[in-house]
Amino acid sequence: MTAQIIDGKRIASELRARVAGEVTRVKRDHELTPGLAVVLVGHDPASQVYVRSKHKQSQEAGMASFEHVLPENVAEADLLALVTRLNRDPLVHGILVQLPLPKTINTEAVINAIDPAKDVDGLHPSNAGRLAGGFAALSPCTPLGCIILSKSVHASLEGMNAIVIGRSNLVGRPLVQLLLNENATVTIAHSRSRDLKHLSARADLVYAAVGRREMVRADWIKPGATVIDVGINRLSSADGKTRLVGDVAFAEVAAVAGAITPVPGGVGQMTVACLLVNTLRAACAIAGLPKPGV
Amino acid sequence: MTAQIIDGKRIASELRARVAGEVTRVKRDHELTPGLAVVLVGHDPASQVYVRSKHKQSQEAGMASFEHVLPENVAEADLLALVTRLNRDPLVHGILVQLPLPKTINTEAVINAIDPAKDVDGLHPSNAGRLAGGFAALSPCTPLGCIILSKSVHASLEGMNAIVIGRSNLVGRPLVQLLLNENATVTIAHSRSRDLKHLSARADLVYAAVGRREMVRADWIKPGATVIDVGINRLSSADGKTRLVGDVAFAEVAAVAGAITPVPGGVGQMTVACLLVNTLRAACAIAGLPKPGV
Repeated sequence: MTAQIIDGKRIASELRARVAGEVTRVKRDHELTPGLAVVLVGHDPASQVYVRSKHKQSQEAGMASFEHVLPENVAEADLLALVTRLNRDPLVHGILVQLPLPKTINTEAVINAIDPAKDVDGLHPSNAGRLAGGFAALSPCTPLGCIILSKSVHASLEGMNAIVIGRSNLVGRPLVQLLLNENATVTIAHSRSRDLKHLSARADLVYAAVGRREMVRADWIKPGATVIDVGINRLSSADGKTRLVGDVAFAEVAAVAGAITPVPGGVGQMTVACLLVNTLRAACAIAGLPKPGV
Repeated sequence: MTAQIIDGKRIASELRARVAGEVTRVKRDHELTPGLAVVLVGHDPASQVYVRSKHKQSQEAGMASFEHVLPENVAEADLLALVTRLNRDPLVHGILVQLPLPKTINTEAVINAIDPAKDVDGLHPSNAGRLAGGFAALSPCTPLGCIILSKSVHASLEGMNAIVIGRSNLVGRPLVQLLLNENATVTIAHSRSRDLKHLSARADLVYAAVGRREMVRADWIKPGATVIDVGINRLSSADGKTRLVGDVAFAEVAAVAGAITPVPGGVGQMTVACLLVNTLRAACAIAGLPKPGV
């Protein structure tokens, strides 16, 4: 069997187009321009790339985009003051503070300061709690992307056996909640799990989110299963170039799985597209409009 | 094999004694008397029994106990005003609004109004979110009791395969988080899960929290597994008496399992004891004291 390759690039591009269509509609019908504010502290090169991408894609979707860059040594109080200002700013519907923050800053305090209604990263405890409680919530973008990719293969995930390998706050834990909302049966495994291979080999849906390159091998996968690879590991090759590798040994797993996401070109493509979805949803909710059609 | 019967009554009684010891200590050393406020709306007989039990047990543990009974037709605004008053009351460290509330009242709004620091039922989204994020939080009492009972059998749950059957906000979902904190591998199953019997029969730890009497049968259980029965189902017998039955077919499962909780006398015994633990912890946290030794 050779797996269907799930084309994250195409799916993300279609999703962005749908967001752009909805943005056009709410602008025209409600004079509402969804606005996203991104805050970057310092000059981490990877963070700069992400922030630039968010800025560009939100503009392309017709949104207002506000970029705030603060110096590495900014005082926590100043960062908090900026967040408070953005909370109050009626042009801003989504606030994203790019992580990681410098060690001198209390990340939890900054996240807690964001108005949950504008928390498009879905990290505020109030959103995490609403999600854990099965209520409507702004969900973290990467898990949201995983669900959309899975549903590009299976119209319904109901009753399927899913395994989430990795229990981070950003991916694993919220992904469990989203899978439960889809009525999947979910196992959450992690570094302390025994016999991970066999746990994984029982699942119809495998989500690898551990950050260990090519950990998931062919014999971890039930023939025909759908494999979603959240890992993005940077490998330096002998020629000094950097190559991205997932948590899944792609070539051998693709020979067993029914469908699989590549790295790059899979989950990573979805994250910013889902951020736009969250910003649109937040804008509509704040304006008292019905949930948009995306 | 005949299972060890996990004696919830004894374990709860020992836990209450440890809470009482800590209450004596914080009174003596810090002039702090932990206080629990319980709010009952209406006169549901089961709720009245629970509230009376909470009142009595908190007093026996040396705590201050405040009971507020409001009429069935109380205005939501009046209930919210009471919650606000209790939030501000320095003698009150724990607030519990007995559920279910009358249909005329928005339960979510009432729970959201409770100061998360005093939310000893662990239901506020902020506590659910902190728990889901792996942070210190006030956890719902019944799942906390399930963990304590499990650890009376296994000193560590690390790496064990657990299944939680049922995904309620009160039990199933928070129990998953607590089991993850214990480094167990957790599967969460529910009414839409396929082949529940086989999922269950793989687990070292089985938590039944579905509210369907005697649903879990002997062939659902791996020989030697630990079975924690959260179900409390009321059965009327021919003679008009009411009998309590769990979600587990006790007699036949006890012949297979390694350890099992009875109903009554199992999980139910732990809930109020854990409420006292939460009230003590909340009082110490609010007073800026270290986490108590229980």
